[in-house]
Amino acid sequence: MVGAGQLARMTSQAATGLGIGFRVLAGSATDSAALVCAGTVIGDYTSLDDLRAFAEGCDVVTFDHEHVPVAHLAALEAAGRQVRPGGAALRYTQDKLAMRDRLTALGVPCPQYAPVADLAAVAKRAADWGWPVVLKAVSGGYDGRGVWVCQTPAEAAEVLAHPVRVFAEEYVAFDAELAALVARSPHRQGAAYPVVQTVQRGGVCHEVLAPAPGLPAGRAIQAQRIALELAAGLGVTGLLAVEFFLTPGGLLVNELAMRPHNSGHWTIEGARTSQFEQHLRAVLDLPLGDPHAAAPCVAMANVFGGTDPGVYGRYTHVMAADGSVKLNMYAKSVRPGRKIGHVTVLGDDMPTVRARAVRAAEYLATGRE
Amino acid sequence: MVGAGQLARMTSQAATGLGIGFRVLAGSATDSAALVCAGTVIGDYTSLDDLRAFAEGCDVVTFDHEHVPVAHLAALEAAGRQVRPGGAALRYTQDKLAMRDRLTALGVPCPQYAPVADLAAVAKRAADWGWPVVLKAVSGGYDGRGVWVCQTPAEAAEVLAHPVRVFAEEYVAFDAELAALVARSPHRQGAAYPVVQTVQRGGVCHEVLAPAPGLPAGRAIQAQRIALELAAGLGVTGLLAVEFFLTPGGLLVNELAMRPHNSGHWTIEGARTSQFEQHLRAVLDLPLGDPHAAAPCVAMANVFGGTDPGVYGRYTHVMAADGSVKLNMYAKSVRPGRKIGHVTVLGDDMPTVRARAVRAAEYLATGRE
Repeated sequence: MVGAGQLARMTSQAATGLGIGFRVLAGSATDSAALVCAGTVIGDYTSLDDLRAFAEGCDVVTFDHEHVPVAHLAALEAAGRQVRPGGAALRYTQDKLAMRDRLTALGVPCPQYAPVADLAAVAKRAADWGWPVVLKAVSGGYDGRGVWVCQTPAEAAEVLAHPVRVFAEEYVAFDAELAALVARSPHRQGAAYPVVQTVQRGGVCHEVLAPAPGLPAGRAIQAQRIALELAAGLGVTGLLAVEFFLTPGGLLVNELAMRPHNSGHWTIEGARTSQFEQHLRAVLDLPLGDPHAAAPCVAMANVFGGTDPGVYGRYTHVMAADGSVKLNMYAKSVRPGRKIGHVTVLGDDMPTVRARAVRAAEYLATGRE
Repeated sequence: MVGAGQLARMTSQAATGLGIGFRVLAGSATDSAALVCAGTVIGDYTSLDDLRAFAEGCDVVTFDHEHVPVAHLAALEAAGRQVRPGGAALRYTQDKLAMRDRLTALGVPCPQYAPVADLAAVAKRAADWGWPVVLKAVSGGYDGRGVWVCQTPAEAAEVLAHPVRVFAEEYVAFDAELAALVARSPHRQGAAYPVVQTVQRGGVCHEVLAPAPGLPAGRAIQAQRIALELAAGLGVTGLLAVEFFLTPGGLLVNELAMRPHNSGHWTIEGARTSQFEQHLRAVLDLPLGDPHAAAPCVAMANVFGGTDPGVYGRYTHVMAADGSVKLNMYAKSVRPGRKIGHVTVLGDDMPTVRARAVRAAEYLATGRE
């Protein structure tokens, strides 16, 4: 696995269980996965030489992020390496405008969007869609962000002032945000997890509720079907996470990821097969595991660093208060707003389960209830 | 953790989840846990120097086996190291006769036993108990065994011919073998897992059924209570696994282990807190996790090496046949009779769940159904 963040860290646990040899390409020996994996190689994922050396002796190469240059992926594939997902699929996660075009060609419902070169073009779209208008970086972004909800032309102008290629999207007034996680193997087997609701604040996922509360069965099946069709249409091997807006008019696809995803962390304890094991099974072309939930209600809450670095000192209180809360910590240094772990709670009643998860996550982060 | 077998390997998965730094003292870089743990130190657990060096910088030292010399444990403790369980408790796992004496002093029901110096002493006991008579090595054994069921004086004589100190025990005609797994922390918190049935063949555990089918609730509670009292009476910190004979006259304690135990592997997927996480919580004096089962019925079957080394090549078939079977493989080389993994199945009906687990384990081992 190229990349050694928390996704690689949690994938390593699944690899250990399956008895599968696992190594990570880490930027630093203190990366989250590098701290625990015997098979850590230090290297730079933007260096083709480092990638080639890392891939040497691996049966399959996969990823915990989307940032490996597409040309490098093509070079590895040309050299006969099994790269999963392949560069032809991964490029859509690196070029959001190409992704929108491809989704439109596949007939998948998306927000209205348009390439924009300048403020006049944005204003023209806003005349149709109304303000706010969403500007999205085609690739990357600045200040750690790639999406800007612009309420006014002045705000749009500020985004356009940066040397980042953007496109415009209508602002979608959604009822809820959903995510559908599916796996697809080279043998073309597919598996779909229950559709979840993601609760975001400031564009950052804070909670995941599985299954999505109150979601009509027909909508859930539609989301799973779209995700499975997208996995096939884009030629994904491994996991595909599809984020949706649920609107009164139906589902709209917001974002895609071709790897284990924050919206699937609940599956570690909450599903028969965790997303990390499923990703390994899929990229290794093993039969996929049972994606069903292990409890009627599962809630996951992310733990963010606060201003107090003493998160591990609060373990005692969280564990004593609720012996059924499952802690998953990434051994990352604490910085305000940095995702350093998550907690999961299983049960029969979503409001209760959710409250327990949020309470534990908040307390870990801040020491406050 | 001193020792790097499969117990350390599975403990490392739990440590990763908790975000706890974890290292193992491995005899070889190819030990099961050494293959996956970043924190592997190669050394000899019979060398006090190696143990001292390993313990340097560890907050707590614990064990995946019972073979560290008691004098070394005492030396580490005298040097201020936190050794959990401590030498005063662990010595009972190294001296089965002392363990029997201590259990008797604690009022815990055991099979009748007696030290025996020669065949005449064995014959004298057999006159009371009848044949067969069980001879047990006080410590260690030979040919990989420490227990011999002797049908005749000639068989007893053969055991006594070896330079191994033994004692005699009555042969117990049991209805079933049970195991009670509990945890105890330095704060004296206790937690008891559901009592399981172990299915042994030739003195080796093949299956574990949780909860023990048909066991009256009163007997289960009694087994948990004995195990919790034993943990307190012996001063155990960490896990204590107590193996019982269930007889028409009641429960008799057979064996003890003060570490994660084969009879608790089902807890990885089958309980809210796995035994490996629970052991870490207990030895680190963190509040203990919820030990309740995650499903009405859980069956675990060990995977033994057969004559065919191609166990990993059979993954495809096992996974395709049953996407809900959980595989846990130890990445050990295959030798006939060697425990190389286990499978776990959760469900609502024990005969079905058990049949699925046994089928998967047999197929993995042999390629035969």
